[in-house]
Amino acid sequence: MLTLVGLGLWDEKDLSLRGVEEVLKADEVYIELYTSRWYGNIENLKRLLKKEIKVLERSDIEEKYEKILEKAKEKCIALLVPGDPLIATTHSSLILEAKKRGIEVKVVHASSVYSAVAETGLHIYKFGASATVPFPERTQEVLPISTYEVIRENKKRGLHTLLFLDLIAEENKFMNPNEAMKILLKTEETMKENVFTENTHVVVFCRAGSENSSIFYGKVKDLVKIDFGEPPYVLIVPGKLHFTEKEYLKLFKVEE
Amino acid sequence: MLTLVGLGLWDEKDLSLRGVEEVLKADEVYIELYTSRWYGNIENLKRLLKKEIKVLERSDIEEKYEKILEKAKEKCIALLVPGDPLIATTHSSLILEAKKRGIEVKVVHASSVYSAVAETGLHIYKFGASATVPFPERTQEVLPISTYEVIRENKKRGLHTLLFLDLIAEENKFMNPNEAMKILLKTEETMKENVFTENTHVVVFCRAGSENSSIFYGKVKDLVKIDFGEPPYVLIVPGKLHFTEKEYLKLFKVEE
Repeated sequence: MLTLVGLGLWDEKDLSLRGVEEVLKADEVYIELYTSRWYGNIENLKRLLKKEIKVLERSDIEEKYEKILEKAKEKCIALLVPGDPLIATTHSSLILEAKKRGIEVKVVHASSVYSAVAETGLHIYKFGASATVPFPERTQEVLPISTYEVIRENKKRGLHTLLFLDLIAEENKFMNPNEAMKILLKTEETMKENVFTENTHVVVFCRAGSENSSIFYGKVKDLVKIDFGEPPYVLIVPGKLHFTEKEYLKLFKVEE
Repeated sequence: MLTLVGLGLWDEKDLSLRGVEEVLKADEVYIELYTSRWYGNIENLKRLLKKEIKVLERSDIEEKYEKILEKAKEKCIALLVPGDPLIATTHSSLILEAKKRGIEVKVVHASSVYSAVAETGLHIYKFGASATVPFPERTQEVLPISTYEVIRENKKRGLHTLLFLDLIAEENKFMNPNEAMKILLKTEETMKENVFTENTHVVVFCRAGSENSSIFYGKVKDLVKIDFGEPPYVLIVPGKLHFTEKEYLKLFKVEE
């Protein structure tokens, strides 16, 4: 039996009671922390759960996953994952491999930025496809045209775009919204389709699910100058705003 | 202080440790259960939290919300809400009203079907706008053209559509996927744009987050005959499938 347990948005407190129960039942417990930033403390988590928790590193993931699947044939293995577990395709693949081997699989869902974005006041059913703004070094300095196109297509339909900002969690490296906006402005210079300009309104949602989460709304030219504090962040390019969305966003308006 | 605490997908076990902590700090605790189906047990929840919990009914919501806001000026009020709290626009409006009155607001996020759909193996960033299939009696038998159009627009871009099925929770009335498919087939008869036919492939995700959740994948003409068991359900119309999505969906394939 393999159980993927979501850790939720922020720290060990975002684990659900169901998640705690599943971890307590497990023979062995693993955690992976490289698909997103997790602000919890593993020592706290060990104390809380009174269990040994083995940390998986990205470097040995392939090999260890094979070992985990072998173990899961006989034992109950719990794997703790930041956010809601199957958002990262790597865990989705793990489940697929487990099922192919006839291993029983359970998923304990948890809070995720995919629904937490509703805190911005933007209507969740009006979000179109989402995309990521990649670090230029990952794309050999090629501009993220596909990301620009996702925003363009959503905008055409009046839909909002949720943009994830690239991260290399194990190096503690997170793209900040300012860098993401600059990359998209550069892409605009090439594409010239008026999709992401200095006058485009955007929302920045920082540290979702934490005690000091914050939301900013304004024009790119004003937001690009702001210090948003600690990661993580998401950037949202709103589509056509309903009047209730407009009213809500006023709460987060940055003065020009 | 007003704290909205998400109850998560299924029952009292989907409450997070953060949610428990916030409820324990509160002077008064309310729960509303009419925006979605919640399978928890209020008596269990009271025992678990060792707190009195007052149930809000839809019928007196407006008036009671006003009272809650009045109380929240002086006291710590916690409102328990199924799923992730701000998905329902009614709670989003409540927060807005609270903030206008200068009341401090906190949100404790929880699991939601918006991210749980990743359990189908469909890539979450490829979901376009979502929509609801309404009960015919709500729309005076008018077909849900706008829902049909959302599917069409998503499909054009290769995106998946998450469809919510109408519910009247207080009457314990839930549209089942069979009824939803029949409504969409009828809409197809009128629209004739080849968006939702008997040969369209769909995914039905039942009881997300529960011990007996299940996923079905197949053609409408085959799925329409299946008994999906207890609610809730969501219906997904996939767009263009990546090969990893195809491989994953095979796990849930219904034989013709």
